[in-house]
Amino acid sequence: MIALQTEANTSLFDQQPPGRRALARALTLIESTNPAHQARARALVDAARPRTGNAIRIGITGVPGVGKSSFIESFGQRLLDQGRKLAILAVDPSSQQTGGSILGDKTRMASLATDRRCFIRPSPSSGAMGGVARTTREAMLVLEAAGFDVILVETVGVGQSETMVADMVDLFMVLMMPGTGDELQGIKKGVLELADMIVVNKADGDLTQKAKFAARQYQNALALVEPISANWTVPVLLASALEQTGLNEIWSSIQNHRQTLTASGELQTKRQQQLLRWFKTALHDQILSQFFTNPTIKAQLPQIEQAILNGQTSPYAAAASLIARTTPP
Amino acid sequence: MIALQTEANTSLFDQQPPGRRALARALTLIESTNPAHQARARALVDAARPRTGNAIRIGITGVPGVGKSSFIESFGQRLLDQGRKLAILAVDPSSQQTGGSILGDKTRMASLATDRRCFIRPSPSSGAMGGVARTTREAMLVLEAAGFDVILVETVGVGQSETMVADMVDLFMVLMMPGTGDELQGIKKGVLELADMIVVNKADGDLTQKAKFAARQYQNALALVEPISANWTVPVLLASALEQTGLNEIWSSIQNHRQTLTASGELQTKRQQQLLRWFKTALHDQILSQFFTNPTIKAQLPQIEQAILNGQTSPYAAAASLIARTTPP
Repeated sequence: MIALQTEANTSLFDQQPPGRRALARALTLIESTNPAHQARARALVDAARPRTGNAIRIGITGVPGVGKSSFIESFGQRLLDQGRKLAILAVDPSSQQTGGSILGDKTRMASLATDRRCFIRPSPSSGAMGGVARTTREAMLVLEAAGFDVILVETVGVGQSETMVADMVDLFMVLMMPGTGDELQGIKKGVLELADMIVVNKADGDLTQKAKFAARQYQNALALVEPISANWTVPVLLASALEQTGLNEIWSSIQNHRQTLTASGELQTKRQQQLLRWFKTALHDQILSQFFTNPTIKAQLPQIEQAILNGQTSPYAAAASLIARTTPP
Repeated sequence: MIALQTEANTSLFDQQPPGRRALARALTLIESTNPAHQARARALVDAARPRTGNAIRIGITGVPGVGKSSFIESFGQRLLDQGRKLAILAVDPSSQQTGGSILGDKTRMASLATDRRCFIRPSPSSGAMGGVARTTREAMLVLEAAGFDVILVETVGVGQSETMVADMVDLFMVLMMPGTGDELQGIKKGVLELADMIVVNKADGDLTQKAKFAARQYQNALALVEPISANWTVPVLLASALEQTGLNEIWSSIQNHRQTLTASGELQTKRQQQLLRWFKTALHDQILSQFFTNPTIKAQLPQIEQAILNGQTSPYAAAASLIARTTPP
C-alpha cells in the first residue's frame, strides 16, 4: 500500500520507458476497489490519455484447444524481434469464480513471460464484468502511454467477454481450428460478426489440408454475416504457431487494416464510438452503484423485498415506491 | 382510449370469466407506455394479484423448424378438450425491429386462434426487452386472475428471450429436433441449463428412429449440465404434433412436476426468487429511466459526450462528474 501511494503516480510517464515495477504497481492501483486508490487511478489515466492513440490495439479470442497461447508466443516473439514494444492483457471472466487467472502462473506463455521486452498482465481475479472492462481499458491506456505500441488483449470465448474485448480494440482476431465439416458445425455466428480477421491455426503437417478446407468454410460463413466495415474485407489467414508460418502475413494484414481504417476515417469513428459506449456503460454502473450504496435504500430494501414476498405489493410498484423515497420532493 | 379508460378497470375480475374484449383491453392497457395508463395498469395488476398463483405457468422454446406452432396447436387442443382453460402469450424480441409479431396474423396456430376457449396474445411489437418482460409477466397475472389455469409463454430462441421466459414460468419446456450426430452438434448448453423438460418433436414416420436417437443424446448432454433442481430429474420425452402422440405423457409429466415441486416447497421458493429478480430488474430499469429523463441530464449529456470525444475527460471520470450534478449536496 505504501508503494502504491508513493510511486504509482502521475509522474509515471516522465521516465520513458517507465520501469516495469512502477508500471505493474500502476495497474494494481487501477484494479484496486479502494476509493482513495480509485481517485489516484483516475488521475493516472488522465495523465496517460494525452500520450495514447498511436498503439495498435488487437483483441484475440479462440476456443480452448485452438492453440491460443502457442500462437501468441510465436506471434509475439516475431513482433519483438521486429523491434515492436508488446504488451499483453488477459481477460478471463471465469477467473472471478476460481480466483485464479489463466496467465497467473506465467507458465502458459513461457518465453514471452521471461522476455524483458514484453509486458504481460494477467486477468484481474476479482470484480464484476463491468469492473474488468474498465480496468482492462485503463490498463491499455497506461501501457500505451508507457510506450508500448502493440497491445494484445487476449480473451477466452466465455459469455460476453468476446463482445467486451471487441469493443476496446481496433482489430479483433478470431483464432479457429482446422477441421472438416463436422467440427465446423459449431461456428458461432456471434463471434464471426465480431471478427476483423480470422486465423486458422495449426496449419501444419497432417492438418494442412484440413486447415485450408476450414479456411474456405469460414470464408463462406462470413458471407452470411453483416459486413463489419464498409472499407475492410475480413481476411481468413492460415498460420502455424509450431512451424512459425503465416505470422508475417498476419502482421502485414494487421498493418493493412490500420492503414485502410486510418485513411477512410473509420479508425477515428470506431474509437469515438467505443468511447461513447464505455461512457454509457460506466454511467449505468455508477448510477446503480450510487443507488444501492445509499443508506436509506440499504435500510429499506429488506422490508420491501419482504412485502413483495408477502404479496402486499408487486415488484414493479415496489420499485417505483423505493425510488420515490430517494428523490427530493 | 375511451374504451381503455372506462372498461379495463379493476372491476374486471368481478365477472368470472371476464369478457374476451375486456381482457384484451386490459392487456393493451398493460402494454401502454402512457403514464396515466401505466398507473391504471398497476391498479389492475394489484387487483389481479390476490387471485393468482394456482395456474400452471409453462414456457416453451424451440428453434425455427422444430414445429413449435404445430406442437402448441396439438398440445393446446388436448388441454382444451380436457376442460383446461388455456391462455397463450408470445414473446418475440425480434418483433421489436420488424414491428410485426409472430402471432400477429393468427394464421400460425389457426385452430387455437379460432377456438373461443383459448385466449392468444401476440408479442407486444414495441418496447425494450425490460418492457416486454414486464408486460408479459403482468399479462400472465391478469390472465390467471381471469380464470385461465394453464398459461403457455412461447418464445423464439433469440438472444436473452429464453432466459427471460424461463424466469417467469414454473416449468420451461425445450422442443428439440429429431436427428443424428451432425444435427446435434449445435445443442446450446445454455438452453439445456434452463430446461425442466425436453420434448423431441416430429417423432413420427421416418423420423421415429432419429427422434429416439436424439432423445438419448439429449439425455447424455443433460448429464453434463448443472441439475436444475434437487427434487426433479429433467425428462426427455417424444412427441408427434402430426400424429398427436406423446401429448398425454407430456401433460402427466407436467402435473408430476407440479406435484413434486409443490410437495418439496420448491415451487414456492422458485416463485419467490422470481419475484425478487423481477423486482431487481424493475428497479434497475426504473433507476436508469429516472436518471436519463432528468432535464439536467438531458441538457448536459451532449456536452459531456463532446468533451469525451475531444479528449478532455475520460469516460469513467465523465460518468462520475455527470452523476455528481444530480446529487443533492
